[in-house]
Amino acid sequence: MIVIMKMNAGDEQVAAVQSYIENHGLQTHLSTGAERTIIGVIGDKTAITDGNILRLPGVERIMPVSRPFKLASRDFHPEDTIVNINGVQVGTEQLTVIAGPCSVENRDQLLTVAKAVKEAGAHMLRGGAFKPRTSPYSFQGLGEEGLKILAEAREETGLPIVTEVMSPEDLPVVEKYADVLQIGARNMQNYALLKAVGRSPKAVLLKRGLMSTIEELLMSAEYILANGNDRVMLCERGIRTFETYTRNTLDINAVPVLQELTHLPVLVDPSHATGKWSLVQAASMAGVAAGADGLIIEVHNQPEIAMSDGAQSLKPRRFDELMHQLARIATAVDRTL
Amino acid sequence: MIVIMKMNAGDEQVAAVQSYIENHGLQTHLSTGAERTIIGVIGDKTAITDGNILRLPGVERIMPVSRPFKLASRDFHPEDTIVNINGVQVGTEQLTVIAGPCSVENRDQLLTVAKAVKEAGAHMLRGGAFKPRTSPYSFQGLGEEGLKILAEAREETGLPIVTEVMSPEDLPVVEKYADVLQIGARNMQNYALLKAVGRSPKAVLLKRGLMSTIEELLMSAEYILANGNDRVMLCERGIRTFETYTRNTLDINAVPVLQELTHLPVLVDPSHATGKWSLVQAASMAGVAAGADGLIIEVHNQPEIAMSDGAQSLKPRRFDELMHQLARIATAVDRTL
Amino acid sequence: MIVIMKMNAGDEQVAAVQSYIENHGLQTHLSTGAERTIIGVIGDKTAITDGNILRLPGVERIMPVSRPFKLASRDFHPEDTIVNINGVQVGTEQLTVIAGPCSVENRDQLLTVAKAVKEAGAHMLRGGAFKPRTSPYSFQGLGEEGLKILAEAREETGLPIVTEVMSPEDLPVVEKYADVLQIGARNMQNYALLKAVGRSPKAVLLKRGLMSTIEELLMSAEYILANGNDRVMLCERGIRTFETYTRNTLDINAVPVLQELTHLPVLVDPSHATGKWSLVQAASMAGVAAGADGLIIEVHNQPEIAMSDGAQSLKPRRFDELMHQLARIATAVDRTL
Amino acid sequence: MIVIMKMNAGDEQVAAVQSYIENHGLQTHLSTGAERTIIGVIGDKTAITDGNILRLPGVERIMPVSRPFKLASRDFHPEDTIVNINGVQVGTEQLTVIAGPCSVENRDQLLTVAKAVKEAGAHMLRGGAFKPRTSPYSFQGLGEEGLKILAEAREETGLPIVTEVMSPEDLPVVEKYADVLQIGARNMQNYALLKAVGRSPKAVLLKRGLMSTIEELLMSAEYILANGNDRVMLCERGIRTFETYTRNTLDINAVPVLQELTHLPVLVDPSHATGKWSLVQAASMAGVAAGADGLIIEVHNQPEIAMSDGAQSLKPRRFDELMHQLARIATAVDRTL
Repeated sequence: MIVIMKMNAGDEQVAAVQSYIENHGLQTHLSTGAERTIIGVIGDKTAITDGNILRLPGVERIMPVSRPFKLASRDFHPEDTIVNINGVQVGTEQLTVIAGPCSVENRDQLLTVAKAVKEAGAHMLRGGAFKPRTSPYSFQGLGEEGLKILAEAREETGLPIVTEVMSPEDLPVVEKYADVLQIGARNMQNYALLKAVGRSPKAVLLKRGLMSTIEELLMSAEYILANGNDRVMLCERGIRTFETYTRNTLDINAVPVLQELTHLPVLVDPSHATGKWSLVQAASMAGVAAGADGLIIEVHNQPEIAMSDGAQSLKPRRFDELMHQLARIATAVDRTL
Repeated sequence: MIVIMKMNAGDEQVAAVQSYIENHGLQTHLSTGAERTIIGVIGDKTAITDGNILRLPGVERIMPVSRPFKLASRDFHPEDTIVNINGVQVGTEQLTVIAGPCSVENRDQLLTVAKAVKEAGAHMLRGGAFKPRTSPYSFQGLGEEGLKILAEAREETGLPIVTEVMSPEDLPVVEKYADVLQIGARNMQNYALLKAVGRSPKAVLLKRGLMSTIEELLMSAEYILANGNDRVMLCERGIRTFETYTRNTLDINAVPVLQELTHLPVLVDPSHATGKWSLVQAASMAGVAAGADGLIIEVHNQPEIAMSDGAQSLKPRRFDELMHQLARIATAVDRTL
Repeated sequence: MIVIMKMNAGDEQVAAVQSYIENHGLQTHLSTGAERTIIGVIGDKTAITDGNILRLPGVERIMPVSRPFKLASRDFHPEDTIVNINGVQVGTEQLTVIAGPCSVENRDQLLTVAKAVKEAGAHMLRGGAFKPRTSPYSFQGLGEEGLKILAEAREETGLPIVTEVMSPEDLPVVEKYADVLQIGARNMQNYALLKAVGRSPKAVLLKRGLMSTIEELLMSAEYILANGNDRVMLCERGIRTFETYTRNTLDINAVPVLQELTHLPVLVDPSHATGKWSLVQAASMAGVAAGADGLIIEVHNQPEIAMSDGAQSLKPRRFDELMHQLARIATAVDRTL
Repeated sequence: MIVIMKMNAGDEQVAAVQSYIENHGLQTHLSTGAERTIIGVIGDKTAITDGNILRLPGVERIMPVSRPFKLASRDFHPEDTIVNINGVQVGTEQLTVIAGPCSVENRDQLLTVAKAVKEAGAHMLRGGAFKPRTSPYSFQGLGEEGLKILAEAREETGLPIVTEVMSPEDLPVVEKYADVLQIGARNMQNYALLKAVGRSPKAVLLKRGLMSTIEELLMSAEYILANGNDRVMLCERGIRTFETYTRNTLDINAVPVLQELTHLPVLVDPSHATGKWSLVQAASMAGVAAGADGLIIEVHNQPEIAMSDGAQSLKPRRFDELMHQLARIATAVDRTL
């Protein structure tokens, strides 16, 4: 941490800041510039907060030096983490494609889609049983009944199941059926939930909040890791910007940035990142070309009667075509599908 | 809802969209423009989603006409809602000021601050016992011990208590002590939590998410109202923008907009909206001048040793000065403090 | 400037960075932390750019210490600048209200509005003759004819004239008539234009770009000041965010921030900042309460036939009412109207 | 255009809105819903603005139906536009790569880079002689001397030249040397400049403003097209968001969206979109995979002494490697490099 003093800060103010810091068991290092004095702070900063120092007379700004995430950081864990889910290895040369409907609506729908995506080459099945919806009047998901249908689809297809958990209270029932616990974008900073899944034996797919920085995403991953669960996968799913033509803005830069900063696998969700089925192919191709370890794609057999996200769901035939295109891009970046 | 057809949509496509809509029990109304046909949809739209219609051939866009919130809407409830909390009436000519530290740190700290803000004229006491922190390594709050200290401060000062609840699991214990349940910005779309507080007998202070639209804030209020709790207060606490000089950007426009759209009381949090104590006074004055029904302000007796939000907390003396300034602004807008 | 080395940077990399910096005539100052080494850079940095140092092996990040603006900075010029325009003193205890239509449409319209705003107590008259419009098919302004009408209104009312200049080519003609040259939000970083008005004898009203940070606004002011024109007024006019209910988001925090950072007068434009006449009063009151030195408000005698910005223009009667309200707020913050 | 009346709007208000619209030579079409009346407006809307109608009593909102751009729209011009620049065909199956330094610094630098990018397979040469810089104290470009060096590089390599023009005043001199006139992001809504290049015989590369919507980009293209120049290429170069880890956020969705909405060629600038050389490869690959017609990439022989954008410039060797990777991606999407 570096403390930047105001231009007109006096020597006694500088000395008082140094004393304050040293009294908390840290060391200081003074550097006197042409205009300002800066104070480097060395040691474990958990005893004080930025806000404390900002209150001392003569202090203008604080700048962090170390990154606040440790367990998620590549600095401390240089090798890629590979998450194994019933034999599907996420984070290897082999890409992982997770596909399925936004919501589990009924047995027929889910089994139809599950078989179709399996046949097209998907590696895992997604489907929501507990649904976070902006309106209290919208379909809220089938709950445990939906989870049972998902489990049946796993039986039929062998595909591991990815499904969202929205609350610590629901975790016991979701854990009973799911292979991967999805934390949705709106819950990325629901810390009670992060702690709960951190204590679960199941792998976690953590989606970036639509209002969250890359660093905040990694801090949320840190919550899960710090609670003992190291099977965490990250997902860039589009952020909110001023652009309204698309539902969200796919932050494609986040893919190589995350690959630099963390050892955890990075997936892209082209469905939410665009909100429009006609853009899903381009976004999927871009994600793989940029270095993502996989994709999570919404597929529905009849989007025109889907209970949610019909606008952004691919039909099975188009998903199949996309998989063929993705195989070509995968080859071009020395990966396999 | 209005369906806008593509420029080159054929008559049979228009007819198919009409049939689809009418088959779901709705009426349609055709309007043929110079370039495009548009289809008005009349009736209860819960049977179909925008996404469904967007999938029909020839459809370009959907535009909503009705607002999605009902119970929160001033259209359906023209009179201002007044929320009574142990005699404090929020949403009247009399402004409501909630003050106190970010976190309850210990008995001495809280009682000192509680007495100081009471003396300066505050109407309710804030203080966090369960703290949402970006880092798992930061202070997470005292939990129930903090709630007990809050209750003791209420005994001493008579001030009702506002404190955050972060998870449905914690609701029973928080409810036992709190007068107002605060939903923090990061949990604004934690629907499990919204439903839970919607079933609580306690009043709710719902903070706007840092990247949530005004409409989304009202939809989250709708969750609480639809679950039976009509004692909801809204709080504008700054949104996230590209500007990094301040912690957040106070969306002062939201104050009169919310007063137009909803009957619920609207408060402003100048502490989080700025992140810097030296800006709190200006933001508070602006909030009252713009028509807010109250303010929630962080006050700490020793910000330089505060365990959280030291940078944005006022000291008691400065809070007292601010109250005097606010009284003058209140008079200028025909309100009282 | 501070250079933060990567965690794994070797001593020879640190030494190479030091040599590079010292070879450019600067001094370095080393601080070795638990995890990383940081290098303070002391002296005049114009010889090198951040980008240069970022390219050196082992460097992770660069952090600026000094602010990049000098002439605009309160650090170097602690007293408030007062801009005198034909006797109107902007930046004093007395607030300045600039009012008038978005566009000059014809003689009758402008004279009617000019007299009305004069009577209500406005101090200057605004009106656009050269109009920046998103569409090439929209009304582009009357050009010099509009300027002549503005000059006539000045004759009639005594109000100094504020009008936009869009291009260095237009400056000679605009200068002939205007008292204050307005730089619009879209041109805030049109450096050719900033240099041109920097060489003009006329005062400048510089509007913040809708995509510009506070620091960028001050850097654009610096362009004008560095070219010799020290009569610069700044204007917060709303920024672009994800919120779409209002045309822009009034960054009310920017008012006290600018008052801290710069000695230049700060105005608020509540018309563009909201885009909706019904919100102009609240935004104006907030602006004054937050410490603005003045306001620039759109007024039109017949907004329903205005050629631009009809939705956000006040009618003269409502402007008159607003002035009465503003007088009360002014008193509450120890200023006069 | 559709006019949405307030819920409580009376019949006489609806009738008054209809009369107003019909008196301006347009037709109306009434649709009475359960809650609100909506009025469709048919015909040429240039006689009235949204703002006019918003002022009529009982009106709540206006929604546009037609898109405001015509000449740039694929609806009116379904075939792809191909822009021919000295034989380089932009907008075909063959990708176009423009490469070169941010600024022309001296003859040696430019010729070295020009030969290197030519050898690696670039199709055009970029280099700035007039530089838009945030600070008035930064290097502002060599001006005409830089243009002469660019022309010499064209002689030597045969590569057409892309260079920025910042002001209508500079256009004559820039036109004398450039093959493509670049409009920078900060000038995307500098309408005087857009009109000037619209009258030029030279092709134009129009960069998206860093906080401009896709629709605004197309409206700026419309300015150029409407002034008679139909050789316009668009460039997505990253937008400003809340994320600060990267310089900008590459809006990769904009690539397929623009391909849907317009017939003009679409390029991607991975250098500005990321701000960091280590991310340029991923962003370039993503751009091509998403369907861009080309790329514009900053290359510098000695980034550690570059006068601008050193942090994001590739060295020639790395650019050469990138071209090899791009060739593989091109093949995977049925294009050539």
